[in-house]
Amino acid sequence: MTDTVISSHKKEVVLGFERPFVVIGERINPTGRKQLAVEMAAGDFSRVVQDVEAQLAHGAHMLDINAGIPLADEPAILARTIELVQSLTDVPLCIDSSIVKALEAGLSVYKGKALVNSVTGEDESLEAVLPLVKKHGAAVVAISNDETGISQDPDVRFAIAKKIVERAADHGIPASDVVVDPLVMPIGAVGSAGRQVFALCQRLQKELRVNTTCGASNVSFGLPNRNGINGAFMSMAIASGMTSAITNPLHSEIMTSIMGADVMMGHDPDCMRWIQKFREPPAVGADGAEGRGRRQTRRRRAVS
Amino acid sequence: MTDTVISSHKKEVVLGFERPFVVIGERINPTGRKQLAVEMAAGDFSRVVQDVEAQLAHGAHMLDINAGIPLADEPAILARTIELVQSLTDVPLCIDSSIVKALEAGLSVYKGKALVNSVTGEDESLEAVLPLVKKHGAAVVAISNDETGISQDPDVRFAIAKKIVERAADHGIPASDVVVDPLVMPIGAVGSAGRQVFALCQRLQKELRVNTTCGASNVSFGLPNRNGINGAFMSMAIASGMTSAITNPLHSEIMTSIMGADVMMGHDPDCMRWIQKFREPPAVGADGAEGRGRRQTRRRRAVS
Repeated sequence: MTDTVISSHKKEVVLGFERPFVVIGERINPTGRKQLAVEMAAGDFSRVVQDVEAQLAHGAHMLDINAGIPLADEPAILARTIELVQSLTDVPLCIDSSIVKALEAGLSVYKGKALVNSVTGEDESLEAVLPLVKKHGAAVVAISNDETGISQDPDVRFAIAKKIVERAADHGIPASDVVVDPLVMPIGAVGSAGRQVFALCQRLQKELRVNTTCGASNVSFGLPNRNGINGAFMSMAIASGMTSAITNPLHSEIMTSIMGADVMMGHDPDCMRWIQKFREPPAVGADGAEGRGRRQTRRRRAVS
Repeated sequence: MTDTVISSHKKEVVLGFERPFVVIGERINPTGRKQLAVEMAAGDFSRVVQDVEAQLAHGAHMLDINAGIPLADEPAILARTIELVQSLTDVPLCIDSSIVKALEAGLSVYKGKALVNSVTGEDESLEAVLPLVKKHGAAVVAISNDETGISQDPDVRFAIAKKIVERAADHGIPASDVVVDPLVMPIGAVGSAGRQVFALCQRLQKELRVNTTCGASNVSFGLPNRNGINGAFMSMAIASGMTSAITNPLHSEIMTSIMGADVMMGHDPDCMRWIQKFREPPAVGADGAEGRGRRQTRRRRAVS
């Protein structure tokens, strides 16, 4: 049992092997969203506000915040976005940048215990990011590649994850605050991408005892009906032990697949969340709210 | 590697760990379909004909044939249904009855190597069904319950499956002709039902080296949005090593989940079946059929 606690000033989210899957909304990211990039660079955050509301309305438990805009002042924009988002919602955030100065700026304004996204197995990354994570008491996403690139061999990727966990320990960061990203390749290009990730998730849980996350949408890159692939991938990854993902909660196929997988894993006791989400609307004249309250009380019991 | 070959007089379907998942259409079954029961008992098979066509059109690889109608002459109706269905299609059939005389009648008219559904771990069932399976050179579904009922302990269910495989061997039936059904309970009633089946599928593949099937729709009994649960269950079962299921191919969520799982397992080389099913229609004026032929030739390669 490894619990990774991420928090805002008011709210905690916990990643764990025997807990519901954690959905980290991916939308607040200007990469590939030209209009959002232009607006954020110009100080217009209206679309960010919409993205916050929409992702929370669709069930995101955390939000990823990325401000990677070429030629812009990424540290300043990331910090400003984080302040704005934390003024709008209590859900914990994932501070997402490949630039250490931006991570630092984001952490300096963040209220709570953030998830820093990310550190890799490269020495330069480890020595720059881990002290920052330690200083701010954050958790960190550990991406299983290093100076040699992304290996197609799950054993190599496991070894890199292990190295990052060990290096984090050297910096005083416990394994429970390291969330490993096994790296999801596009299945259209790498036919073994799914099996690689499933095997890695199993080993990361059983042997390294760490929580896991991934950029899930990448798996369907270039294919038609991407949400169909993403949905199958999500439930299979959860069956293999993955405990969170950065993905798009606005796609109902993905959220249905995740919620269904939580049911199948026994992480939705008495199927209460599933039933609340999908049950037929109450008959006309029935007191829906009252009925729901009673039903919860009657049906809820401890997880066995 | 265990291949289970099922055939009609003209066509083979193979269940295997490194093969695409096999969908056995569940629709030709009067249980819970009162109108179908009345019609089949009266010799009206028009709905059976429709069920054959619809299930094949939606991608079924095999069809389950059940004629369990109370007070009717099940052996005669089952045999007649099988003859009719085999006159309509080349796909192999699963002969489904709890009555040994009906299995016998079905096998006596069946052309090819059928999948007999089913034998249990009860001695009476073993000694009645296995000689029949051997005599007709069929394969058999082995349901992992016995005189003591259905255990909630996966170890007990594994032990029963092992006993059936060993007893089959005593009758000269190889393990490759035994397809184990780990028994899927409704998740709304048994919260551990999913984990039980996933753990069993993994052991059945790794330790007993047998193929697997199940009555998949049962898992969502009593819940809203049953197809959402069924879809998540199917892809997770496939991730755990399940190689076939008796299910309803008419529900697109289920078939999308199965096809997506085949992609993720590397059982749809170059994602060709996925792309053919879901790609955008060709632009107006383009020669779709011709284009498709060329693309297949260019992209297809051996399974690595």
